[in-house]
Order: sequence, then structure tokens, then C-alpha cells
Amino acid sequence: MKIRTAVLTSAKRGHTHLPLQTMIDREGFPQATLALQLKELVDAGIERVGIVVAPGQAELYGEAVAAATDCVTFIEQTEPRGFGDAVLRAKGFVGDAPFVLSVGDHLFVSDDPAHPCVAQLIAVAERERAPVASVQSTHESEIGLYGTIGGVLEDRDRALFRIRKIVEKPTPTQAELELLVPGLRSGHYLCFFGMHVLTPRIFELLEADAGAEGGLALTPALHRLAETETFYAFEIAGHRYNLEERHGLLMAQLALALASPHRDEVLTRIVRLLAHTQSPAR
Amino acid sequence: MKIRTAVLTSAKRGHTHLPLQTMIDREGFPQATLALQLKELVDAGIERVGIVVAPGQAELYGEAVAAATDCVTFIEQTEPRGFGDAVLRAKGFVGDAPFVLSVGDHLFVSDDPAHPCVAQLIAVAERERAPVASVQSTHESEIGLYGTIGGVLEDRDRALFRIRKIVEKPTPTQAELELLVPGLRSGHYLCFFGMHVLTPRIFELLEADAGAEGGLALTPALHRLAETETFYAFEIAGHRYNLEERHGLLMAQLALALASPHRDEVLTRIVRLLAHTQSPAR
Repeated sequence: MKIRTAVLTSAKRGHTHLPLQTMIDREGFPQATLALQLKELVDAGIERVGIVVAPGQAELYGEAVAAATDCVTFIEQTEPRGFGDAVLRAKGFVGDAPFVLSVGDHLFVSDDPAHPCVAQLIAVAERERAPVASVQSTHESEIGLYGTIGGVLEDRDRALFRIRKIVEKPTPTQAELELLVPGLRSGHYLCFFGMHVLTPRIFELLEADAGAEGGLALTPALHRLAETETFYAFEIAGHRYNLEERHGLLMAQLALALASPHRDEVLTRIVRLLAHTQSPAR
Repeated sequence: MKIRTAVLTSAKRGHTHLPLQTMIDREGFPQATLALQLKELVDAGIERVGIVVAPGQAELYGEAVAAATDCVTFIEQTEPRGFGDAVLRAKGFVGDAPFVLSVGDHLFVSDDPAHPCVAQLIAVAERERAPVASVQSTHESEIGLYGTIGGVLEDRDRALFRIRKIVEKPTPTQAELELLVPGLRSGHYLCFFGMHVLTPRIFELLEADAGAEGGLALTPALHRLAETETFYAFEIAGHRYNLEERHGLLMAQLALALASPHRDEVLTRIVRLLAHTQSPAR
């Protein structure tokens, strides 16, 4: 199994400018956030990327995309009908092959520059020949923000789990009852990192849900996938940054800068900044 | 003398996207960098802003500008003929009144949120009824980057100097011979901060220089202004961030965040980031 196709969702309304924000990459070069995300996919062996966008965004993003790659197809989600619907829009583009699904509103920074997050995930999926969700051990105080899995350890060395159950944004009580995963630190659960390798089977599961009130979610379809076939969770060596949060762009940029050869220079400037700023409350 | 007019230069080629970068302001709200700059001008009493842009930029910036104010006029600089030429383009817009000249490629963060940089500068110019350049005490290792003044202390309490001479990007040797200002820390000089209050007389001085080879600079005209009339330098209580530098946007955003009520939250996240990142060289 070789994974050559990726779907990047970028269709959220109200964050149109996010993919165009300038990021300084690990080598110190400026580029649009979207271009950075695309380059990481291409560097991991992806040959076709479908970007799911809201109406009007394709024209805005054309220049940033062209700077990164010529393998992009824009897929329009005409109505904001939920994340599951955005994924389902990509059915025709994906065709028969397994594919990477990645969310455009996060930046993923690997702990090891030689192995970017998406490359780690693809390697696992190609080896296991099965769908894989990237996950991260997350403290119970934060699981209310994420899709969270229950499952069993498959292989400690390979950081691989087998998913039994998936619940979107559980409460700590629900998680303790249903989502405990042996082998994690106390009070920690495995939450979605924001990147999966899936097969076209997900589109069938989504289509079965389509037409429901209030938009189409992805998590219930993923849960049924785990009930009916082998679906792994892989604990990725990296960190995710939610770019839509208040200081999300700042933190993502800081993470890249601190993982770059300019780390010492940036640290020096932070210390200087701290020296001449003070709490406005005092 | 009331100052109601401002000119913001934003015409540098190759940095078209800079004014559209999202910044989280001191209150925690996201907005385009250009909108942030405009709001600070309007809050300081400015009623008309002329933005000098390169061809095609007016359309791009329209949305960001509209989010901040309706008092903007775009002024096109058709050819990149230097900073002095960009200023001269604003002659017709400015008319007879004194005006603030501010550079769009920097962000100015006041040490005191109650007194933004441009408001500090306007207050001094209105009180002194004369042109004023904002300056900052700068170590000799960095004066090669800035316009640097020589002059005499007018009033320590008001941080006011009288300008005698201005040299663009001097060497330390030249600065020691010609630009020493009594009362500064050893090895320090007064460099331009990036914001002036000028009178329309500057346009006459620029016109006298126009047509020279290699573009029209502003500094020689400012130097002649200081030779022929009273021109003050005011040591501003704030810091400037060059947004065109490699990590300029990052540092500007960090400065705003550390001067905001979210300072402690941001500091906590920085410390966490430092804990899980390490130098890529090791």
C-alpha cells in the first residue's frame, strides 16, 4: 500500500485569511501557512492534494498554492454542513486509493525535523496496511476539546493502539468509564491529533449519515469504522498548534522558530522582550 | 497646532502581504496589521490617513482598511523611486497642514498602553508647534541600520532634543565624530524610531532633490530641514519591531501579547514550548 493522495480541509468560514498568514519555516524562509502544509505533504510522497475550500477561497489561495506545488485540486464545499460533509466532498477526487486527511486549521510540528508528522503517519499506515489515526496523549482537562479514543495497546515500541471506540469531546467521567487506555500516564487519554490515513470506505459511512439535522460530523463515521474493521491509533512524536486560537499563530511560529537553527537568536530576543515589558496589571 | 492628517507608507515591493498579516491586539482581538496601525492613528486624533501603496495594493488592502476606519485615501507610487519619493507622492493629499509620517513596515508598541507611540509624538509636536522626529537611544552596533541624529538636549524631563545633523546609516566612527549627543549612555546614539511629525515644507525640500539618480531618499531633506528651522527629536517610550525581518512578525506579536492581559497565559505556554523543544543542533 502506497499513499499518494491527501485531502486538506480548509473550508471553515470566518478564517479565510488563515492559510495566507506568513510563517517562517524551520530553515528561516517565509511562506504562506498553506504552502508550508502542502510542502510537508509533498515531501512525504503525496502526489495529489485536494483542498476543500469555501466558495471564493480557491482564487485567494491560488498564489500560495502555486508557490508550493502544482499537484493541487480545489474542491468546493458550497454550504457549511460540517467537517464530515467537507470530507465527503472529496469522494470523487480521492477515488479508490487510501488517503491522508489533514486539517488546515492546525500546524503540526514534529519533535524530529527528519521525520515530519505526516511522514511518520504515512509510514505506519503503509506498514500496517490499514487506516490509522494519529493521536496524542492528552490530559483529561483538555479532552473536552477533541475526538478521544478507547482501545488497547498493540505495540508499545511502535506507539500503536487498536481503536475500539471513539467519542467526540467526552467528559472526564465518560472518558474514565469508556475510554481508558492501559499504559498511559494517569489521567491521560488518547485524543485525535488532526491527521488520519483513511480508505474510501469512510465515504460510504459518511453517506449513511448524510442528511441528518445540524450538519455531518466525521467522528461517528470513524467510530463505526473502528467497529467494523481494523483501525489503528498511532501516538505521533510531535505537537499540534490550533491556528484559530487567540495566540495560535504566535505559538505555532514560536514552535517552528525554537525548532530551527535560529533558536538561540530567538531565545535571546524573547529574554530581551521580557526584560523591557511588564505585566499591564501592575 | 492640531494634527489631524497622517501619511502611512506601505509601498515597498515584495512585502505586499505584510499589512494583511493577522495580529492579536493588546485586548486579544485579531485584526490585520494595517488595521491595527490605522486604529492607533485614529485613536490619537487623526482624521485623514493617506496610505502610499504600490500599484494593485489598494484593492488588496481595502477590506482590512474598511474594518478599521473610513478616513483612508490610497495614494499610488507607480514606480519604486525610494522612500523620499513615496512621501512626496502624498503632497497633494496633505495640503497645508502638519502631518504624521509613519512607516507601515514597523509595528510600534508603547511602554504604556494608555499612551500609544503616535499619541506621545503628536502631543509633543502640538505643544512645541514644530516638526518632531521620534527617536530611540540605540547602541552603536545597530546605528548602521537607521537614520541617526546629532543634536543637543533641550529638556531632559520631556525627553526632547534639538536636531543639528542627520546622517543615514552612519558608521560608529562617523557617529562618534559628528553625532554624539550629551546625556546618553556611553556608546549610544539617537536613531529614528520610524515616525515623524512634519510640515508641508518637507515637500519643497524633497522636490529640490527630485530627479537624482538612484531614487529619492528622505534623510537628506530632513537634514536640511534641521539646518533651516527648529526640528526636535523626541525620545519615545516604546519599542519598534521591523516586520520585514526574519522573525519580525513573531517578535511584534510577542511584544503585544506580553503587554496584554494574556501575558501570564502566553508566558506559561512559552515555558511549556521550551520544555518540549530542544536545539536542533544537538
